[in-house]
Amino acid sequence: MSLNDSSHQVEESKDIKETTQALQDASIDEPTSKKAQKKLEKEREKQKRKEEVAARLAAEKAARESTANDFASDNYGKKPLNQSQERTYQNRKAIDSISAKMAGESVWVRARVQTSRLAGSKNCFFVLRQSTLTIQGVVSIDEDKVSKHFLKFAGSIPPESIVLVHAQVVKTEEAIKSCTVQDSELKIYKIVFHFTIEDASRSERFFADVTIFVYNSLKKKKEDTVNPQSTEEEPSPDSSLEKEKKFSRVNLDTRLNNRIIDLRTITNQAIFRIQSGVAQFFREFLLARDFVEIHTPKIIGTASEGGANVFKLNYFKTSAYLAQSPQLYKQMCVCGGFERVFEIAPVFRAEDSNTHRHMTEFMGMDLEMAFEEHYHEVLDLLDELFVHLFTNIKNKLAKQIETVKEQYPFEDFLFLPKTPRLTFPEAVALLRENGIQQGDYDDLSTETERVLGRLVREKYKTDFFMLDKFPLAVRPFYTMPNPGDMNYSNSYDFFMRGEEIMSGAQRIHDPDLLLERANLLGIDILFPYIDAFKFGAPPHAGGGIGLERVIMLYLNLGNIRRTSMFPRDPRRLEP
Amino acid sequence: MSLNDSSHQVEESKDIKETTQALQDASIDEPTSKKAQKKLEKEREKQKRKEEVAARLAAEKAARESTANDFASDNYGKKPLNQSQERTYQNRKAIDSISAKMAGESVWVRARVQTSRLAGSKNCFFVLRQSTLTIQGVVSIDEDKVSKHFLKFAGSIPPESIVLVHAQVVKTEEAIKSCTVQDSELKIYKIVFHFTIEDASRSERFFADVTIFVYNSLKKKKEDTVNPQSTEEEPSPDSSLEKEKKFSRVNLDTRLNNRIIDLRTITNQAIFRIQSGVAQFFREFLLARDFVEIHTPKIIGTASEGGANVFKLNYFKTSAYLAQSPQLYKQMCVCGGFERVFEIAPVFRAEDSNTHRHMTEFMGMDLEMAFEEHYHEVLDLLDELFVHLFTNIKNKLAKQIETVKEQYPFEDFLFLPKTPRLTFPEAVALLRENGIQQGDYDDLSTETERVLGRLVREKYKTDFFMLDKFPLAVRPFYTMPNPGDMNYSNSYDFFMRGEEIMSGAQRIHDPDLLLERANLLGIDILFPYIDAFKFGAPPHAGGGIGLERVIMLYLNLGNIRRTSMFPRDPRRLEP
Repeated sequence: MSLNDSSHQVEESKDIKETTQALQDASIDEPTSKKAQKKLEKEREKQKRKEEVAARLAAEKAARESTANDFASDNYGKKPLNQSQERTYQNRKAIDSISAKMAGESVWVRARVQTSRLAGSKNCFFVLRQSTLTIQGVVSIDEDKVSKHFLKFAGSIPPESIVLVHAQVVKTEEAIKSCTVQDSELKIYKIVFHFTIEDASRSERFFADVTIFVYNSLKKKKEDTVNPQSTEEEPSPDSSLEKEKKFSRVNLDTRLNNRIIDLRTITNQAIFRIQSGVAQFFREFLLARDFVEIHTPKIIGTASEGGANVFKLNYFKTSAYLAQSPQLYKQMCVCGGFERVFEIAPVFRAEDSNTHRHMTEFMGMDLEMAFEEHYHEVLDLLDELFVHLFTNIKNKLAKQIETVKEQYPFEDFLFLPKTPRLTFPEAVALLRENGIQQGDYDDLSTETERVLGRLVREKYKTDFFMLDKFPLAVRPFYTMPNPGDMNYSNSYDFFMRGEEIMSGAQRIHDPDLLLERANLLGIDILFPYIDAFKFGAPPHAGGGIGLERVIMLYLNLGNIRRTSMFPRDPRRLEP
Repeated sequence: MSLNDSSHQVEESKDIKETTQALQDASIDEPTSKKAQKKLEKEREKQKRKEEVAARLAAEKAARESTANDFASDNYGKKPLNQSQERTYQNRKAIDSISAKMAGESVWVRARVQTSRLAGSKNCFFVLRQSTLTIQGVVSIDEDKVSKHFLKFAGSIPPESIVLVHAQVVKTEEAIKSCTVQDSELKIYKIVFHFTIEDASRSERFFADVTIFVYNSLKKKKEDTVNPQSTEEEPSPDSSLEKEKKFSRVNLDTRLNNRIIDLRTITNQAIFRIQSGVAQFFREFLLARDFVEIHTPKIIGTASEGGANVFKLNYFKTSAYLAQSPQLYKQMCVCGGFERVFEIAPVFRAEDSNTHRHMTEFMGMDLEMAFEEHYHEVLDLLDELFVHLFTNIKNKLAKQIETVKEQYPFEDFLFLPKTPRLTFPEAVALLRENGIQQGDYDDLSTETERVLGRLVREKYKTDFFMLDKFPLAVRPFYTMPNPGDMNYSNSYDFFMRGEEIMSGAQRIHDPDLLLERANLLGIDILFPYIDAFKFGAPPHAGGGIGLERVIMLYLNLGNIRRTSMFPRDPRRLEP
């Protein structure tokens, strides 16, 4: 659904049109001859799909009509809608629990049909899928359980249907390379499914979607070479990897418009399991170090920092705002006696930034802690925290990472047991040594950050580093000035592959200095904020980490929308 | 800050006025003579506080003026603002690591001054606090390290200041019952602090706040009997406990208006550690059962279920809404191949409900899962989940629970290894047996729920039970009808101490039936919602749990605002 489509009318062919348009949009810069050729291919493919649909519908019809005197009629068919009619405690297997060791055993498996293919007049081959797992299934005519009608029925099941099969595990002679279970397959002698696709128009629509989104994006790379001029996804910032990305020909916008189907791809199944893992590694690390998880309000009464980039909402008879960050509230918790706090929660930014790394709603992993003597105590903890995250991603999510790599190959993320910590002046010196102009007290541009990332990688062999002591002038008013030299501050950013993923600082905990700084910078400070420090605040520091950015950069996915299930940006509010 | 106070002007005495007003408000129903007496007492107390302030300021002044020729001048004083000037890796102790075993050892401790008391001309006693932990400290004049000036300085430190002390651990002869460390105390010979309160007005304000919020609410019950007519907090629903609640005389609104200080009370330190624990128990349980943690958007393009009770916001050139629940999105995830998902995230309700259990923003612990045969598979998992939560609260958070009980005594929460599961008709029968009128297909009122909770408690000896098979008519349109009898549905609520804490159901996963039900109920259904089920959806069920309600009811706190750090309701947007 596009943002402008508020009518919600059903047009059966709309999705196909949209898809076609999206695919065309993506090829807008290519020479005309190529475009024409692609158009032709698309037409052909469309025609082919239409024919496929027709053939399937015919098969379905035939199957329906001729089950009357079928000896195998109990072994296949559509079940009525599951309304929890009965509970038989049937033991159903996960695909990854099946192996050649179970040869001869009978199993029940519920799975999605990824592909089905009638081979000659006696066999129908399936690839059955559960999340990232696949196994081959075969329906073969025999005199006992599988009739001709059964076979026809099997051949008519649309891909992405959820089926329940009863089958015998059979050891395969050769490894089945196209499936995750390679040493065995399922000899199916019973197949039922709940999902019904009755009429032609819906089937056509269904097929169009499935063919484009799921089937193609699940294809292995080698198969994709059939269509080498395929529409590229938007280029990755790391252009050396671009040529590798022939895995899928589906445009990102098209994917996101049809996210429910797109999420089923094994790559997305892996990406969001990695995301789930990272948040938990973050929490486990902090809880073990006496942090308390907090939940701060997202609806706030006053817009912080002047009200720019803040979403405004109606709140009964008054107005309210969406929190841009939990900054004030986590500091209030520190002042309120919770000296170590963290929160993983949505953060809202009304910025009209349409880049590969900005969203209007994203997950902030925020923490704040009181320290004893020096904010480097917090940097030390953050260093350990990130090494913990990276080590756990590498060790505990290795399978998921391999899955993502198949579609989006990337160079392994480099990190060190102790993270390099450059000061801002050191970074400026390193840039200048390499011919990059950079003012002593100017902020780094996105491009300069990227260059710095490369230079640090060359020098230290790491994709992760900390940059400490930013110029005071480029940081928020509540940042603690550096002792001795007020040109700098006790603040830091962390970088992954040359992009910022965390920003933090020691905060001013003295109300007088805070007011002084705000006045100096012309900030219309909020008194509740000042008040928080009037009742005794310990020195403290913290930071906010963008969850989606961490995943995007670790996996080098090039666009933050790939690591958000339902991304929000200035142009996207749906699905 | 009240909702109407948008001016944010500083008035030194405003807080005191507000506080006084709030205290008066709370006593509005009392007879006039009592009121007058209370007013008098309040006046006296105010006067006493003023005198205390004056005495302290005089002491401070004297201390400042006379440190010139003091042999102990290096051992006390105010340190400059911590800007992370130096890092000495000083080993500072947590209060709970100190015991009589360490007698004779020297330690550094950073803590808040909870109370300080000059005793005669030679000693000053402190209670020092870290979160819920307290230890006694003593400054005693000697010839070597503690001068008269030092003692004066010690006596002038305002409560709630954060101090750093160097002290010797001394075994006590008698147990110090007013502190958590009872077998030892700190003989202080060095004391410094960062926090500065320079001028009289600020001190006065500070004292007023501290005296009311922290000191009084930290007092032990027995001390509280000094003022038996103290203003009650709002009554608990369980009136049998009301008379026990003499612990604190501070009105809840006053507490919430001054939340930063209120959060420091040991009770709140415990409550929010319990909240932090429960969320993590929830996640650990589900992650171990192959659930994936998801993050669904809170800004949505279309208001679900007709737009009632939804907050509307400005979104660039268009409008958007705040998600009332992650319902649609978690179902989309299930359809998108993540068959077991959960989310802990804020939920927004624009309901003008001003009750003890409603907030406009609260934390939803949501889950959704595909099942194989029967939605009772999900109920079984939820049963295990809650028993896991309650068992872990009891075992792992026993200390925090004892702390809460000191201020808010409550009967232990009863639960069973296997939770009773009543059907709606069974509940109706039980109610009627006990003389309560209840229609077969009517929803339960809040009051009837409470009675049912008592009846179930008597019959099954549990404060927790599940109510299954609600009438179809009282549930949302997407609820799966009961097979066989369409008067009922495959839906359930869970109750703690007679209040609903979770609502859930098997959802309709067939697009045709979903559309039919929506049309029948006159719901203007959203097509993206229908569409989600057109590409093959497994049968699934789930539910949403209110985190704050679980904590409120487990601890029987009587008001949900006590389990939200910064609660939001129709009248409260601050702090």
